[in-house]
Amino acid sequence: MKVTVSRKAHFNAAHKLFRSDWSDEKNKKVFGKCANENYHGHNYELIVSLTGEIDKETGYVYDLGKLKNIIKAEVEEYLDHKNLNLDIDDFKTINPSAENIAILIYNRLITYFDESYDLKITLYETPRNFVEYSG
Amino acid sequence: MKVTVSRKAHFNAAHKLFRSDWSDEKNKKVFGKCANENYHGHNYELIVSLTGEIDKETGYVYDLGKLKNIIKAEVEEYLDHKNLNLDIDDFKTINPSAENIAILIYNRLITYFDESYDLKITLYETPRNFVEYSG
Amino acid sequence: MKVTVSRKAHFNAAHKLFRSDWSDEKNKKVFGKCANENYHGHNYELIVSLTGEIDKETGYVYDLGKLKNIIKAEVEEYLDHKNLNLDIDDFKTINPSAENIAILIYNRLITYFDESYDLKITLYETPRNFVEYSG
Amino acid sequence: MKVTVSRKAHFNAAHKLFRSDWSDEKNKKVFGKCANENYHGHNYELIVSLTGEIDKETGYVYDLGKLKNIIKAEVEEYLDHKNLNLDIDDFKTINPSAENIAILIYNRLITYFDESYDLKITLYETPRNFVEYSG
Amino acid sequence: MKVTVSRKAHFNAAHKLFRSDWSDEKNKKVFGKCANENYHGHNYELIVSLTGEIDKETGYVYDLGKLKNIIKAEVEEYLDHKNLNLDIDDFKTINPSAENIAILIYNRLITYFDESYDLKITLYETPRNFVEYSG
Amino acid sequence: MKVTVSRKAHFNAAHKLFRSDWSDEKNKKVFGKCANENYHGHNYELIVSLTGEIDKETGYVYDLGKLKNIIKAEVEEYLDHKNLNLDIDDFKTINPSAENIAILIYNRLITYFDESYDLKITLYETPRNFVEYSG
Repeated sequence: MKVTVSRKAHFNAAHKLFRSDWSDEKNKKVFGKCANENYHGHNYELIVSLTGEIDKETGYVYDLGKLKNIIKAEVEEYLDHKNLNLDIDDFKTINPSAENIAILIYNRLITYFDESYDLKITLYETPRNFVEYSG
Repeated sequence: MKVTVSRKAHFNAAHKLFRSDWSDEKNKKVFGKCANENYHGHNYELIVSLTGEIDKETGYVYDLGKLKNIIKAEVEEYLDHKNLNLDIDDFKTINPSAENIAILIYNRLITYFDESYDLKITLYETPRNFVEYSG
Repeated sequence: MKVTVSRKAHFNAAHKLFRSDWSDEKNKKVFGKCANENYHGHNYELIVSLTGEIDKETGYVYDLGKLKNIIKAEVEEYLDHKNLNLDIDDFKTINPSAENIAILIYNRLITYFDESYDLKITLYETPRNFVEYSG
Repeated sequence: MKVTVSRKAHFNAAHKLFRSDWSDEKNKKVFGKCANENYHGHNYELIVSLTGEIDKETGYVYDLGKLKNIIKAEVEEYLDHKNLNLDIDDFKTINPSAENIAILIYNRLITYFDESYDLKITLYETPRNFVEYSG
Repeated sequence: MKVTVSRKAHFNAAHKLFRSDWSDEKNKKVFGKCANENYHGHNYELIVSLTGEIDKETGYVYDLGKLKNIIKAEVEEYLDHKNLNLDIDDFKTINPSAENIAILIYNRLITYFDESYDLKITLYETPRNFVEYSG
Repeated sequence: MKVTVSRKAHFNAAHKLFRSDWSDEKNKKVFGKCANENYHGHNYELIVSLTGEIDKETGYVYDLGKLKNIIKAEVEEYLDHKNLNLDIDDFKTINPSAENIAILIYNRLITYFDESYDLKITLYETPRNFVEYSG
């Protein structure tokens, strides 16, 4: 009897998309305005979903208060009010696209949950663009 | 050619999370503020989703007007403006966690649909916490 | 050059609407389901708005981080996960209607702001019902 | 390492649900108000989701700017501010139910993506009714 | 001690904007796609707001259950699933623009409330366009 | 017979809040995380509201398609995907706080409307923080 429980969170960050081994012209062509030199930014809205069995004693799949604290420690404190390109080591070598941020968040969170849980990350870069990753 | 159709609904209810066979201290430790003695409450927002084949004659997977009425009779009239712990027999022995409420709703609705349909319940306890159950 | 700044917050609480000096029948007639004996509840979504002059040094009308902390101390810690009828002294003698909760919040917050500010409270009892009060 | 990327769009259209080979009475019985003779309408909100591998060079599953343009050309210019029954050939013979509109959109878009992508259409007919189709 | 109470509702309708005393060319120039011959449509989302004194006995400015029923009778039953141009007499001689629909709703509702109340209509034609009217 | 019409728009930008004539310590104390050196960013959601008389011929207070284009030219093309501190001259000497951005937008738009219109700017910096300015 598997149930999925989800918790929303958010963080605000600056980023740009570009490759230093490409010309400005090619960066502009591939990434458009997202390659603008001085960065832009987003309110990232995050949904963390865990699928697992209900604990008969508590009626919980996972304590969402505990999940909230894990997200706070691993995602908000790490990414909130940061420049993803300059401040986050993970994005020194790869682009902080929404896809790659979702994978980063997944990898930081997955270590907290044993194998009986499935983890899924949904990340809204804007209210109109979002990505999902589940390992 | 399977399509999923979904209908939203809502109900407002009071509840608390606790076990009578645990001490107040243990209830507080496990359930936090959700164990507060005199109950708190939520606007539960519900999404009922049915997956099935399209009826060629009507273009419908299922008549959403009919689904609206089933939800009204089985969920809204049963749970709206109720105290889930005191007024709902199903929660005499198990906790009215969002997970268990979703399962209760699933079990009340599934009897209406033949085996060709898959049913999924999504239940928002708050705009930030939600659960999904599909049997 | 007056600007209005607003901050959202939320709390979850149980309540019912009734008068102990009225018969059950009259309570039912006037308050409908809201008079159900064992309480129901809501996710209250709150918007606190302050109108004032911009501080030329900071570009702020009011520090929204500071406002967030005031709301946390005066509203969330006071009302969140509570039974408004049983746990909140202010509602021993008056009904915890959305109107009266908004006035209570206004009165608790107004003491923090000098006369140069106008304060407005917007309180959503459900996503479909809300009230506004500005003193 | 598959990721799903999604883009939202919208269009406004008129439609009605009825079969010309049925009596008015039968249309009314099956489709209710949706069969009203002179049409009604909706703000359709659309989510187009693509699942695929991340391109290592760009960090993209698919360029959402490119996806936005495809949706504009194939969906918005085709359906926006139209009468689905009268103006859209696809609905001369089948009903413009939300289910059938979602399939139409899927079929118009799928030709743009090679087999390594999975496409999913989510279509809100109203904020309370929506359908999903993934081929 | 005035408080504003608001209730949301909705209806779905078809319309077009045009003047029969103008050429097709002029209608197209002034109203753009909104003049398309065969109509388009919207999910209109409505907020009805009443400002007045709190009744000391009930804690209500106005019973929102009663307001819900008035909106149902005067707005939903009149406009829902209708073609505003063809089915609504009020729009035989004036355009069913969002502005004019808001005024129509105001005029239908104002008769229910005595002079101690102020009425305001907010009407969303789409999630991105809305109008407000208060007499 | 005045009506208010509103149009939503959005732009994504990076910014930070700080004064170069203050020490890092003072900037941190006053602006908190918003002073982080390498910028952060937001999806700014904008509502532009115009109050005026209805044109009897069209039923419009103002053509929202025209308003959309003005917002695009004056706000989106000027601020979208920019670093407000580095790329926008207006913020060389004052902080790009939400308050100051709203005033900037007001000043860029007001020149388009004659004195019979009242203009109001609502700017969401995040879904939880927003400001309003009307001259």
